[in-house]
Amino acid sequence: MTAVSDAATVASRLRAIEGVGRDRRRGGYSRHVFTTAERELREWFAERAAACGLDVEPDGNGNVWAWWHPCPRGDAPAVVTGSHLDSVPGGGAFDGPLGVISALCAVERLRASGFRPARPLAVVAFAEEEGGRFGVPCLGSRLLTGAIEPGSALRLTDGDGDTLADVAARAGLRPERMGPDADLLARIGVFVELHVEQGRGLVDLDSPVALGTSIDPHGRWRLSITGRGDHAGSAALADRRDPMVPAAHAVVAARQAARAASHDGARATVGRLEPSPGGSNAIASRVDVWLDARSADGNVVRQVVAEVCAAAGRSAEQEGCELEVFAESWSEATRFDPLLRARMRGILGDLPELATGAGHDAGVLAAHVPAGMLYVRNPTGISHAPAEHAEPEDCESGVEALTRVLSELAGSTGADGADGTGGNGSW
Amino acid sequence: MTAVSDAATVASRLRAIEGVGRDRRRGGYSRHVFTTAERELREWFAERAAACGLDVEPDGNGNVWAWWHPCPRGDAPAVVTGSHLDSVPGGGAFDGPLGVISALCAVERLRASGFRPARPLAVVAFAEEEGGRFGVPCLGSRLLTGAIEPGSALRLTDGDGDTLADVAARAGLRPERMGPDADLLARIGVFVELHVEQGRGLVDLDSPVALGTSIDPHGRWRLSITGRGDHAGSAALADRRDPMVPAAHAVVAARQAARAASHDGARATVGRLEPSPGGSNAIASRVDVWLDARSADGNVVRQVVAEVCAAAGRSAEQEGCELEVFAESWSEATRFDPLLRARMRGILGDLPELATGAGHDAGVLAAHVPAGMLYVRNPTGISHAPAEHAEPEDCESGVEALTRVLSELAGSTGADGADGTGGNGSW
Repeated sequence: MTAVSDAATVASRLRAIEGVGRDRRRGGYSRHVFTTAERELREWFAERAAACGLDVEPDGNGNVWAWWHPCPRGDAPAVVTGSHLDSVPGGGAFDGPLGVISALCAVERLRASGFRPARPLAVVAFAEEEGGRFGVPCLGSRLLTGAIEPGSALRLTDGDGDTLADVAARAGLRPERMGPDADLLARIGVFVELHVEQGRGLVDLDSPVALGTSIDPHGRWRLSITGRGDHAGSAALADRRDPMVPAAHAVVAARQAARAASHDGARATVGRLEPSPGGSNAIASRVDVWLDARSADGNVVRQVVAEVCAAAGRSAEQEGCELEVFAESWSEATRFDPLLRARMRGILGDLPELATGAGHDAGVLAAHVPAGMLYVRNPTGISHAPAEHAEPEDCESGVEALTRVLSELAGSTGADGADGTGGNGSW
Repeated sequence: MTAVSDAATVASRLRAIEGVGRDRRRGGYSRHVFTTAERELREWFAERAAACGLDVEPDGNGNVWAWWHPCPRGDAPAVVTGSHLDSVPGGGAFDGPLGVISALCAVERLRASGFRPARPLAVVAFAEEEGGRFGVPCLGSRLLTGAIEPGSALRLTDGDGDTLADVAARAGLRPERMGPDADLLARIGVFVELHVEQGRGLVDLDSPVALGTSIDPHGRWRLSITGRGDHAGSAALADRRDPMVPAAHAVVAARQAARAASHDGARATVGRLEPSPGGSNAIASRVDVWLDARSADGNVVRQVVAEVCAAAGRSAEQEGCELEVFAESWSEATRFDPLLRARMRGILGDLPELATGAGHDAGVLAAHVPAGMLYVRNPTGISHAPAEHAEPEDCESGVEALTRVLSELAGSTGADGADGTGGNGSW
């Protein structure tokens, strides 16, 4: 059942898209939702899925689904797998596409083995998982599940000031119909996402694949500091209202607050900071600082954010600047379904288990359906950067594990199939 | 001789270009050299100059000259006036265009009055005065005068990574011919630049126009801090090499060092700071920090820059990052020609005089020819920002002063002209 077709490996599928969305300036890939590059990946995904015999169905929120229906077609809740195709700016090749490609490879291998699912099996590519364009991560799965209010989502703007409503409409979606989709959600019986590991856990554990246990609480805040633009040469120090100074204090405070709470696993990061207008000989009129904060304990995250905002506020007041804080996204702690984890462990044997500080669509779906994750070893431990990597043989271990999980969860009615029971009836 | 034609005011000319290069995102104007907006301004300038009967001659360095030759045509060194058309990102409407438009208006009024110059009179629009695209201010006048080595100028890159060589070639220049132009320089007898004031000096002095005395030493440095890109959620604090932390310490140090030397008029500004890749959920792999530093005393500037670099270096070392410092531009103190100043004071009467911390093409030319400046009152005192302003009546006072200076310096041979001597023969 898990026989590997010699048609395609994960590595060969990754090579097929390696030219799409390269970022010449930053290095790596910039594949933001509904850009030319990301749309090219969607088309590629739809073609590949159709070539596997799947029925491709975009939903109303920008996510693309590819369905394998049992024959005769039943309406049991589906076994769903997949991930996302978008990237952070200048991101790596694996974060997202590895999960989508592994899902397609698993389906190909199941079909090649003669497997016939007893319940629907679907591959999904979620939209804007990184929040790289509109700021809110897992936007596609949040919209689907109602974890974000559609009106506020549609008002989100990208770097050019274009709203999600406008961009989505140009991409062929109907903004007025975006939002929770209870019918689609009800079709999902279980969700399993495969993802490249975003740390060195599996390097240390010397294992190619792990099971996910939990996702730390995490969120993003934008500190918008407004001062007064002026000439860098002629404005006297005493007259300045320079928002860059409080912005810098926010960055310093983020590190200090996270370090003070590091026994609680606190992390705080400013990776994006935008002065406007951004001229080298002009005092900025506004600086936006994005604060990413996470910890195993949500209260610790809130404490860190409060300390950063307080430090920025004190400096802003001293400088005659205004500070506004916008909570862009928040995700409470996710614990992946223990029964599903036990089932996956039963299928795959004694795998390591990992908690993560990285958010995923599986974390959003976990509030609604049993969800689980598989991680594939990343020898650099680095992610959201071009150095992110997974060795071809580890990718194959990942797809093999995913194939076994899917075949067990979706059961088989087929000639070459195994038990014909459809596995655990609850999924 | 200084009779005002009712054809055009400075304000009406400014209105003619008010729609060009508006920056919807930042506010104000972004008119960077060789962009569509700036090229539109060049064309507009060439048309206006031709309509004044001037001979338009672009030089080999991207500057545009418009000549009014005496009749019979002689080869005495010219009286030149002008400024620049480019802006900082999100800049005001006056910095640059006010000087070019006032120059055109002055020529129009001289012609309307029947004035005939005894020596050539030229209006120039210098390229990339702000350094808003390639980082080096007064790039056009520096190339012309040899204040920058052409090879290093041609290797400068813009935000898209395009070199000046490529961009200039696409704009129709011949990069291999760019650089010092001794013949053109020899044609300049004297240069007078009119500019909006970039502080509140004339507000406090209650005067519409002032003479420039000097420009403070000033320069730009780029601190490039390299760390290691990674995931904001999964990279442990202890493993991070986050260049944003030393970048923030550089900003804080810039303010501290400038404040400590503020009795020497020191100013230090970070208005541009670019993390790469710039994702909110990614630790940056590199942060570039542009430091603008100025003072009446060049040694104070060097001291401030050394302190900022030392602070950034200490933080970078602690964080496991690399710091490289690039001196992008440096301008020593400029004292405008005292004989020319005395002459302008003789022409215009008892005007206030102002020193400035803002650089200008007149400062670059001052090393080669007698150069002087006229400043027009700015009621906000703000510059390099949309709030920059000059009242229409103050603009008229400026153009009236400039017209009188030009007519005296260029003399007149004409019927309606005044003395026919051509003024001081040394210009």
